Amino acid sequence: MKLNIAVLPGDGIGPEIMPQAIHVLDAIAKKFGHEFVYHEAICGAHAIDVCGDPFPDDTFKTCMDADAVLFAAVGDPRFDNDPTLKVRPETGLLAMRKKLGLFANVRPVATFDCLLHMSPLKESIIKGADFMVIRELTGGMYFGEKYQDNDRAYDTDVYSRPEIERILKVAFETAQRRNHHLTVVDKANVLASSRLWRQIAKEMEPQYPDVQTDYMFIDNCSMRVLTDPRFFDVIVTENTFGDILTDETSAITGSMGLQPSASLGDHTPLFEPVHGSWPQAAGKNLANPLAQILSAAMMLEHFGLKAEGALIREACNESLLQNIRTPEIQVEGGNHYGTTEVGQWITNYVAS
Amino acid sequence: MKLNIAVLPGDGIGPEIMPQAIHVLDAIAKKFGHEFVYHEAICGAHAIDVCGDPFPDDTFKTCMDADAVLFAAVGDPRFDNDPTLKVRPETGLLAMRKKLGLFANVRPVATFDCLLHMSPLKESIIKGADFMVIRELTGGMYFGEKYQDNDRAYDTDVYSRPEIERILKVAFETAQRRNHHLTVVDKANVLASSRLWRQIAKEMEPQYPDVQTDYMFIDNCSMRVLTDPRFFDVIVTENTFGDILTDETSAITGSMGLQPSASLGDHTPLFEPVHGSWPQAAGKNLANPLAQILSAAMMLEHFGLKAEGALIREACNESLLQNIRTPEIQVEGGNHYGTTEVGQWITNYVAS
Ligand SMILES: CC(C)[C@H](C(=O)O)[C@@H](O)C(=O)O
Ligand SMILES: CC(C)[C@H](C(=O)O)[C@@H](O)C(=O)O
Repeated sequence: MKLNIAVLPGDGIGPEIMPQAIHVLDAIAKKFGHEFVYHEAICGAHAIDVCGDPFPDDTFKTCMDADAVLFAAVGDPRFDNDPTLKVRPETGLLAMRKKLGLFANVRPVATFDCLLHMSPLKESIIKGADFMVIRELTGGMYFGEKYQDNDRAYDTDVYSRPEIERILKVAFETAQRRNHHLTVVDKANVLASSRLWRQIAKEMEPQYPDVQTDYMFIDNCSMRVLTDPRFFDVIVTENTFGDILTDETSAITGSMGLQPSASLGDHTPLFEPVHGSWPQAAGKNLANPLAQILSAAMMLEHFGLKAEGALIREACNESLLQNIRTPEIQVEGGNHYGTTEVGQWITNYVAS
Repeated sequence: MKLNIAVLPGDGIGPEIMPQAIHVLDAIAKKFGHEFVYHEAICGAHAIDVCGDPFPDDTFKTCMDADAVLFAAVGDPRFDNDPTLKVRPETGLLAMRKKLGLFANVRPVATFDCLLHMSPLKESIIKGADFMVIRELTGGMYFGEKYQDNDRAYDTDVYSRPEIERILKVAFETAQRRNHHLTVVDKANVLASSRLWRQIAKEMEPQYPDVQTDYMFIDNCSMRVLTDPRFFDVIVTENTFGDILTDETSAITGSMGLQPSASLGDHTPLFEPVHGSWPQAAGKNLANPLAQILSAAMMLEHFGLKAEGALIREACNESLLQNIRTPEIQVEGGNHYGTTEVGQWITNYVAS
């Protein structure tokens, strides 16, 4: 298979972890006879420095022309103290999502047995949890009409039927491919937009008779993922609730640095680690490349390359088991491995 | 001191736990020479059955005429399947908050050492956590303009300067009375309303030089309360974020059934357990009365009755230590105590 991959390393640790994912992809290409062509493009703070725009048109074009986008992270402390700045790395992120029509953010919440002890949750609660959170990514308060003056401000949490239908379709279908259990999370006891979500979900339910669908309020869900995470198979929710919930659910795995995600939509799909740009670690060969490498695995699986994805996952698992780990997850007395060493080890494993 | 107390038992277990709080209050009145006069009023599903209105005018008047409201909970499964019904117990709750001007919901997040093992979090993380979440309760998406038809729906997350100033004032002052650390939680990197919150908080900061103020995005906060709950002293946030966050933070204590809360505002202050109406347990003498009793303690403390509040807290602690506990927290092999037995024990302790 030939894949044109737009490569967006972004800021912070991005330029360090991205090459590791590329090395792994190259090893896969060689082993399985694929051709992966990389098209690097700038974004985030880096792009603001270069051209004043965190998601420049050139980058947009590179993404649109590619089969997939492999993205790392954006964000820079220089822009952090003033969230009111008009041009910030994060505005580029939102522009990227909107322009690429990436309406479905898919985050597997999976644990690694050998890292369970790092979860803030008790092992008896988190062990075996394995679910997927699907967050709507291009609607709701993020993109609704906004207003702000010195005395009053508002945001509009707006959703249209087609926006809701297409994300619920992704969710129902994901549940069909998994354990046939979908939890629609909303605040239908208070919000009109949630009521429309719930109405449409109920209309669609009969089309998916093999999926057991239930409904949960977001406040209740924020507790339930802590007390009973194994209850869940697929969760779907709107943009703002999803923002909060996905961060909460990645924290409970104990291995935030290992969680990949996919954003799917109208055009080119995008794959990225759940973690941020961790600017404090940039340039220090400290960052864990696994979430980036696993994002590449998700990308291959998206194109049906199951064996290729499985091999990358196996390599990552093996690296953990053999304690080839970056410092934040290294066991006591374990050797020191940096970003490049872990990447190299996984690449070798895949190649061998 | 004479206190006129509006008593709203509401639905489910409310009518069972409320009398226990009253018994305790009576014992306090006798011991300390106070006069507590109770004015019972209906609300919730119960009130819908009686007069079709979950927060009737008579109840409103009873609350307005009282010095404090002691409330239990509302909610009934008969209304749960259809959150689109116009008249539901929850609409009464929202009407109550709005009409009584209860703009500040104050939830202490405190742990009980002897119940720490029930927390979903590891003891090493949750032990010693002791903070306060202050949730704005009468603004934001709950009360902003709403619209819904078959194809489109929206809610408006709107805040005005006075609404923000008054809740931040409560938060800064609470931090002054506690450990002088305030965390303002928002989504200022995306929402205009959050940016106004942040702007106003920064304007007010200089008036509280003894408070260390920091700012955190809600998604980050939803992780941080799990990984580092001891970081927090006072958190303040808007209505919807607060709804999610307070449920998350009460889940981590491991003793949801023991958490009281206060809602303060323009008129009569209200005190209520954090837990809901637990309809499945109604009439079974199973429900834990401690959150209701501790809500009464918060009420007394609100009126400066420190020793009285402290005695109730001591009695509750003692009951836990001596395993005088309702079934959901009883230790293995412990005796069976129902709602009334636990209430009676605490009342006796206070009286003796
Ligand atoms: C950086 C921010 C705008 C973004 C969001 O809120 O969507 C981030 O929190 C995320 O979840 O990807
Ligand atoms: C019942 C519901 C309307 C209410 C809310 O969302 O405020 C509840 O969840 C709460 O937190 O008191």
